[in-house]
Amino acid sequence: MPSYTAPVKDTQFVLHDVLAVTASDIPGYADLEADFTGPVLEEAGKICSEVLSPLNPVGDREGCRLENGVVRTPTGFKDAFDRVRDGGWTALDMPEEFGGQGLPHVMGTAVGEYFSAANQAFTMYQGLTHGAASAILAHGTQAQKDTYLPKMTSCDWTGTMNLTEPHCGTDLGLMRTRAVPQGDGSYHVTGQKIFISAGEHDMADNIIHLVLAKIPGGPEGIKGVSLFIVPKFIVNADGSLGARNGVSCGKIEEKMGIHGNSTCVMNYDDAVGYLLGEEHKGMRAMFTMMNEARLGVGMQGLAQADVAYQNAVAYAKDRLQGRDVTGTKNPNGPADPLIVHPDIRRALLDQKSFVEGARAFMLWGASLIDRAQRNDDAAADGLISLMTPVIKGFLTDEGYDMTVRAQQVYGGHGYIEEWGMSQFTRDARIAMIYEGANGVQALDLVGRKLAQDGGRHVMAFFEMVKTFIKDNEDDARLKKDFLDPLKAASKDLQTAGMFFMQNGMKNPNAALSGSYDFMHLFGHVCLGLMWARMAKAALAALDAGKPDVAFYETKLATGRYYMTRRLPATALHLARINSGAAPVMTLEAANF
Amino acid sequence: MPSYTAPVKDTQFVLHDVLAVTASDIPGYADLEADFTGPVLEEAGKICSEVLSPLNPVGDREGCRLENGVVRTPTGFKDAFDRVRDGGWTALDMPEEFGGQGLPHVMGTAVGEYFSAANQAFTMYQGLTHGAASAILAHGTQAQKDTYLPKMTSCDWTGTMNLTEPHCGTDLGLMRTRAVPQGDGSYHVTGQKIFISAGEHDMADNIIHLVLAKIPGGPEGIKGVSLFIVPKFIVNADGSLGARNGVSCGKIEEKMGIHGNSTCVMNYDDAVGYLLGEEHKGMRAMFTMMNEARLGVGMQGLAQADVAYQNAVAYAKDRLQGRDVTGTKNPNGPADPLIVHPDIRRALLDQKSFVEGARAFMLWGASLIDRAQRNDDAAADGLISLMTPVIKGFLTDEGYDMTVRAQQVYGGHGYIEEWGMSQFTRDARIAMIYEGANGVQALDLVGRKLAQDGGRHVMAFFEMVKTFIKDNEDDARLKKDFLDPLKAASKDLQTAGMFFMQNGMKNPNAALSGSYDFMHLFGHVCLGLMWARMAKAALAALDAGKPDVAFYETKLATGRYYMTRRLPATALHLARINSGAAPVMTLEAANF
Repeated sequence: MPSYTAPVKDTQFVLHDVLAVTASDIPGYADLEADFTGPVLEEAGKICSEVLSPLNPVGDREGCRLENGVVRTPTGFKDAFDRVRDGGWTALDMPEEFGGQGLPHVMGTAVGEYFSAANQAFTMYQGLTHGAASAILAHGTQAQKDTYLPKMTSCDWTGTMNLTEPHCGTDLGLMRTRAVPQGDGSYHVTGQKIFISAGEHDMADNIIHLVLAKIPGGPEGIKGVSLFIVPKFIVNADGSLGARNGVSCGKIEEKMGIHGNSTCVMNYDDAVGYLLGEEHKGMRAMFTMMNEARLGVGMQGLAQADVAYQNAVAYAKDRLQGRDVTGTKNPNGPADPLIVHPDIRRALLDQKSFVEGARAFMLWGASLIDRAQRNDDAAADGLISLMTPVIKGFLTDEGYDMTVRAQQVYGGHGYIEEWGMSQFTRDARIAMIYEGANGVQALDLVGRKLAQDGGRHVMAFFEMVKTFIKDNEDDARLKKDFLDPLKAASKDLQTAGMFFMQNGMKNPNAALSGSYDFMHLFGHVCLGLMWARMAKAALAALDAGKPDVAFYETKLATGRYYMTRRLPATALHLARINSGAAPVMTLEAANF
Repeated sequence: MPSYTAPVKDTQFVLHDVLAVTASDIPGYADLEADFTGPVLEEAGKICSEVLSPLNPVGDREGCRLENGVVRTPTGFKDAFDRVRDGGWTALDMPEEFGGQGLPHVMGTAVGEYFSAANQAFTMYQGLTHGAASAILAHGTQAQKDTYLPKMTSCDWTGTMNLTEPHCGTDLGLMRTRAVPQGDGSYHVTGQKIFISAGEHDMADNIIHLVLAKIPGGPEGIKGVSLFIVPKFIVNADGSLGARNGVSCGKIEEKMGIHGNSTCVMNYDDAVGYLLGEEHKGMRAMFTMMNEARLGVGMQGLAQADVAYQNAVAYAKDRLQGRDVTGTKNPNGPADPLIVHPDIRRALLDQKSFVEGARAFMLWGASLIDRAQRNDDAAADGLISLMTPVIKGFLTDEGYDMTVRAQQVYGGHGYIEEWGMSQFTRDARIAMIYEGANGVQALDLVGRKLAQDGGRHVMAFFEMVKTFIKDNEDDARLKKDFLDPLKAASKDLQTAGMFFMQNGMKNPNAALSGSYDFMHLFGHVCLGLMWARMAKAALAALDAGKPDVAFYETKLATGRYYMTRRLPATALHLARINSGAAPVMTLEAANF
């Protein structure tokens, strides 16, 4: 059975050596001393290793069952959820007024990674609750906040998001679900939603569905969509639970993975709903939840890659097979461990350099959200808005590929379910799809985010890279190994952006044909920047004579691997982008 | 439910327009007129579409069950196998003296692709039989051939290959299975083999296991391994079936995919075995089977990519979602079909250009085997030996990635099992692992095949590419779009080979750190060559005024896509190779 150990030391390195959180001017960051964050991370790691990780294969094997309208979660999930609640892990970055601990988002992200790595399917129940609560927090009335948030903060009640219908996913303007005003401020919601994660289950007293629907007579298409709170049980004025609402689970989908999470067809039949935010402005409210969810999904890519990597390393050190071609390394054994072989190391270093780079990227992104929210900083808000599709698309594509590489290290044992590596791959696969398939992320990036606010945010990103290079290029240890490759990669990204500007106006397809490559190009530059920053931090730690030299030396070596072997992918992405629309658009649909 | 249509027109194009089989000097090729191969391919396509493809999800859902030592295959498999036997599809390229049809290998390959695409798990039962029969044909005594081959040709008896043991897969020198001579020419085989595909099932009267084992007292390690024929039922002198042999299935593995094939733990307990080939020369005999199997596995990569692509195209034309940014294409519908969107086309063209290039590569490879065997041509034998790891490794890695892309086109529907796209991905995953994990293929290529016979075969390959370019560069339609990119890619491959020569002698790890990239680099050059040859053939057809202009124009457009958007990957692979051993070998194992 696979195991999981929370990478606390690595997280601490990013928080303190790289991001220097306590020196930040973001309110609340000064409290994030290493001897505070350390124990929090250790405790989180403990419940992940001891409770959630052992349940991961159980969830995969048993799945969820729909019995007489009730969804049964896998053995042990209910007890584990109680332990998660008791530990306060659902409330970390929720406001104190609603029972949360009011910690910055960066801490929620650091801990969230561990939970996702240990058990993605399980963690989705609380992840969706968090997202729904955030939407209520941002767009709800005070009464709505008071009614729902305390219970959702503790996950006594869980949440869902309901967008997709059988005939529409990406194109929500086609939506058919209707919400009819009842004259008393409430609505009756009727329609069918599919792919509703955690839509129905036996682990919470109530489930608060956020449902997109159209109010009859409203504008056509996406402009006529509103968002509704539809609780499974109506909440009485005194906060107690009242009648069962007209919402039920019609079916649980059989999926490739995340079997432990109930993916439901939800039927709404004159269900009582309450408008969240304004009429016909449902997408705006839903995007509060969706942007958070997209970052959470990007984190899942990193998380699955990390747990798969950890197990692949253990196997590569343990499994004896073949001899080191340059000389036996394990003369007393029948063979050398797999890890002596260059190609096994190549596969492992692809994973390691991705995981550590992605973690830094993720936590930096979380700090931008904190800055945007706590310092009311529009530049930070614009930057994370620009980065959101990159984090979602790049980290889930790469994360999935890394689980495949980890599985490959096991040879045939990676393909049989007994060893658990197949589950990481199957679970990671969904992250490329949900919360907007990665092609849609690329479209969002190139079609919307790049030009947002006159292109100010992408220019700010380039400026930041340039400044970092300029500020550090006197350090010869950084220049050749880190800054020069970063400069080249960043130039590829700028050239690609230029190509879009010059060609995209005349022909949008010239830009959109390269959108997927642009997303990956951008992702590589971000990870290159993170590795340069980590290298700087590692050198500073070594210069300061910090103990654990091997830890910092390993960071440098892993970073050099990324800069040498992964970052040059930017040139390939640029070459494809520069080929424009013709290769992609020439064929008539009939000739595919 | 997904469907499958055999791409007969594309196969015919490769056989006749590209390879010009009837003009070949390979014995038997003159008979392969288009009006002979066409109906054979159509008939094969029919049984694949009508019988095997509908059984594919059934096999996935039901899997195989072990009941009291008997393995039950999924509903319908047994009847389907009878229909395959009745159609003579098991015997296409087996010698006529043993009941086969004596067709060239190229025809077996063309048809084999269809079978694998329609139902990989099912087709493995006959594929392994073919491999085992080939090993007996090449290394058996006349008596062994007469005893086993007629029944194996018809698949009344099926075959298996037994290499892996719990503690060793790649490193077979560690093998523990023992074969003790009984003095009467037979041996008693005892040991446990795992991951035995089609190891036990209910679809054949007998199962002929080819088992690697060590004869006590023989040389240590891999040099002391011999190959044995171990039938499930002992065959009497008159050909009738005698006693049950001491071999049994101990367990069926739960796997990520290919559920319809029984992957067995096989226990040998003083099972009667007969030496195949010479004592201690078992690996040589097994490699006859393994080389064939590796090509067959490469074909599976192509095949799964094709069936996944076919379904993705159908979905992309059917599913209405969003509008073409350059103007509505389906004004009477609520939205445009997915295929209008550039990024969907990008994903589909990645698949299409791979599948068609890979098919040409596969059939060209098969023609090399025919030339090697039928013309006793050592150069062809050397070339296909060099190509075997490329075909296995590159086509299965890429094939898998293409199934992932096809699945992605379906969005959330790609992740639920109902639509069948998940199965293609899960089934395709094994091809990267079995018959030598792809890292081992890369090692074989760089560590052994490149330098084989003084590097003669790789030089011949470069010469062939060079000659093709030289012979055709006067055609301006080929030069810029096809020959120039091919020349650049081929130069990258030569530069990489040069790097290995200059650095690999001093430090083998300098070469082995780049082995995986070299395998992919080589694969891209091969597909680039195939596309250049297909483009030439398409232009010739157009020049000759052949009808179906759209078919040939589509070939040219698809080829241009490959040359523009896929082939430039060679530069990235070269960059990684040129970085040598340091990035990969620096870290101590403890620091991973």
